[in-house]
Amino acid sequence: MSQYHPLTDPDAIQIARSIPHFFEAEGELVSREIGDGNLNLVFHVSQPGSGRSLIVKQALPYAKVVGESWPLTLDRARIESEALRIEDQFAPGLVPKIYHTDNVLALTIMEDLSNHVIMRQGLMDGGVYPKFAEDISEFLAKTLFFTSDLGMNQQEKKLLTLSFVNPELCKITEDLIFDHPYTDADTNSFDPHLQAEASILWSDSALHLEVAILREKFLTHSQALLHGDLHTGSIFITPQSTKVIDPEFAYFGPMGFDIGAIIANLLLNYAAQEHWSAEETARIGRREYLIETIRDIWVSFERKFRTLWNEHGTDRIAKTPGYQDHYMHRLLQDTIGFAGCKMVRRVIGLSHVADIDRIPDPIVRERAQKKALSIGKSLIVLNRQAQSIEELIAIANSVSKA
Amino acid sequence: MSQYHPLTDPDAIQIARSIPHFFEAEGELVSREIGDGNLNLVFHVSQPGSGRSLIVKQALPYAKVVGESWPLTLDRARIESEALRIEDQFAPGLVPKIYHTDNVLALTIMEDLSNHVIMRQGLMDGGVYPKFAEDISEFLAKTLFFTSDLGMNQQEKKLLTLSFVNPELCKITEDLIFDHPYTDADTNSFDPHLQAEASILWSDSALHLEVAILREKFLTHSQALLHGDLHTGSIFITPQSTKVIDPEFAYFGPMGFDIGAIIANLLLNYAAQEHWSAEETARIGRREYLIETIRDIWVSFERKFRTLWNEHGTDRIAKTPGYQDHYMHRLLQDTIGFAGCKMVRRVIGLSHVADIDRIPDPIVRERAQKKALSIGKSLIVLNRQAQSIEELIAIANSVSKA
Repeated sequence: MSQYHPLTDPDAIQIARSIPHFFEAEGELVSREIGDGNLNLVFHVSQPGSGRSLIVKQALPYAKVVGESWPLTLDRARIESEALRIEDQFAPGLVPKIYHTDNVLALTIMEDLSNHVIMRQGLMDGGVYPKFAEDISEFLAKTLFFTSDLGMNQQEKKLLTLSFVNPELCKITEDLIFDHPYTDADTNSFDPHLQAEASILWSDSALHLEVAILREKFLTHSQALLHGDLHTGSIFITPQSTKVIDPEFAYFGPMGFDIGAIIANLLLNYAAQEHWSAEETARIGRREYLIETIRDIWVSFERKFRTLWNEHGTDRIAKTPGYQDHYMHRLLQDTIGFAGCKMVRRVIGLSHVADIDRIPDPIVRERAQKKALSIGKSLIVLNRQAQSIEELIAIANSVSKA
Repeated sequence: MSQYHPLTDPDAIQIARSIPHFFEAEGELVSREIGDGNLNLVFHVSQPGSGRSLIVKQALPYAKVVGESWPLTLDRARIESEALRIEDQFAPGLVPKIYHTDNVLALTIMEDLSNHVIMRQGLMDGGVYPKFAEDISEFLAKTLFFTSDLGMNQQEKKLLTLSFVNPELCKITEDLIFDHPYTDADTNSFDPHLQAEASILWSDSALHLEVAILREKFLTHSQALLHGDLHTGSIFITPQSTKVIDPEFAYFGPMGFDIGAIIANLLLNYAAQEHWSAEETARIGRREYLIETIRDIWVSFERKFRTLWNEHGTDRIAKTPGYQDHYMHRLLQDTIGFAGCKMVRRVIGLSHVADIDRIPDPIVRERAQKKALSIGKSLIVLNRQAQSIEELIAIANSVSKA
């Protein structure tokens, strides 16, 4: 097994059995491949006798997205497992436990979270997650603070960046989030009724300037170790528990990109809460719940990040009067700008979200798409002027009432 | 010779002779160690018969500054030679030619530039360098543009950053430029008559905020491959030729740090042109020459950088209307802020400049120190508000007339 090859169920069982003190020595193991096959193989290996189970996740040497396939580095499995270990160190309990890593086979063996659901699906099913804002703000505050120059020795941080130079996966983000949606690119994918909206987007040079500046931040601002793809499909959830998964896009970038990704995905679900006669009351309640969650995430994040800064700041310069306020203000602005980019690309770009795409009625779906696009564009326009998270909320509210 | 050891003259001769097709086979070689012994051994190896010569530069495993000695990575020799090769690739003729590199011995064999003088000394001796602004603006524009995301493929750039993670030497800059001068640090070194000025500096929290923001840029903005220590002591010069040397501080950082370093060092020499009865007329001429050079550097740099951008930009996003203007404006602001930091530290911090320190008359020297400090502080205060290089020049002019 010293060379890379895609695993079979028997391979997965054999590797899983080698984890010390996990399964009982005698009982039979069962493996079931549960991945979608686009990027990874995911084996659920369980032992019916002991009730124990784990996940064997293996990267495939290609990516398939919307029918297309292109080669993709296996090194992302190493990056994912190293990022998970660092996240577990700084935000314990908020990522799956890692049992074993094999960089040659590009695999990670980790905690089975089958008792959780993917948050995107959970939200689509009307789930309510009262602990989520608390958990995700904790995850963001701790992972971002302790991997930044504010919370980590600066020389140590520089050496850590060596493990997270991630050009191939960053390139996917650079293209699909910061480039293609703003031009008539082949990769774009949108319903025909959005053609006029897309054309407006492609010629809006004031908006393009903001996107160019945000893209530059994504390319050059080595602020902290990001998850890099923190949408609601990268979160396993129950009402009592939050687990962030899949940090294969991890790299050192601008903190606002992670915070903005979460907020954007809640806003995409929000835009999908399209009023529709009979359900109107329920939809209003859903929207209020989502807005409260967004506010709570930012407010809790900011409070926790400032507390970490005050209690664990690495050096005296960071204590300069006014510096923390200035930093948090820029972080809010980045968060709003990146949230906007993350929304626009989910309507016009290659990869969409099920929250909106699976709305059965085409007229309701179109309205949701246009609202998502409108919120996204407004956030991008706002970003460098933003003073408060309430401005983001006001944009969402005004669009939902339009 | 497979392990590191400090070279002797016979070692230097032996290594120099191994360079193919350089020296004549028969003639005797002579070696002379000409370094200052603080950081490096520098052997001048020549062949009197052929008139040929070269430099063997070897890093020492420690740094000595103002009597103190601390260990320092030999990896800086690799970084220096790799940076020189890249600079030579993008700005040919403006760095010494490299003949050979040995990372184990931490040595670089390069072109002998003994026919040049160190620019700091040249300026102190009243030298005039009509080609300098043209050459250094070319060096800055080309090395910074072609190693940034604007001029280099972004994935390639990410891989190149791996070779220039330079924590030890960056730490020296972080401490000596962005930290110690702004507090009562042991490393600071200034004449007793500056005690009151130092105390004001240490308690100026509005200034500290600007320095904290500039330091953050130094720590996190991975814009381009910098020289990292581009003062007039890192430049060999004649009226016809400019050669940038010693890029051992090279790393991916904010472009304005390099441009600001050059301008700061010209302004330090400018502050040393203290009026003094008999010499007044000459001093005025010197000041005008230095100011013209500074203006010319920025104006030429900006013109060349914009031309490179227009002709060699890597992607369509960089062509977004308004983006180039926005970028150049921020670059000017960074340049002014970093120039200010570079000046303050040369008066209050550990390492000074001979331009000022060697002024024989203590009263004239004090006046020069205070002018340098005043210009530096004003530039730091200006930086985020700056609109034009003329504002920097106005500050210098107003201080020199004070």
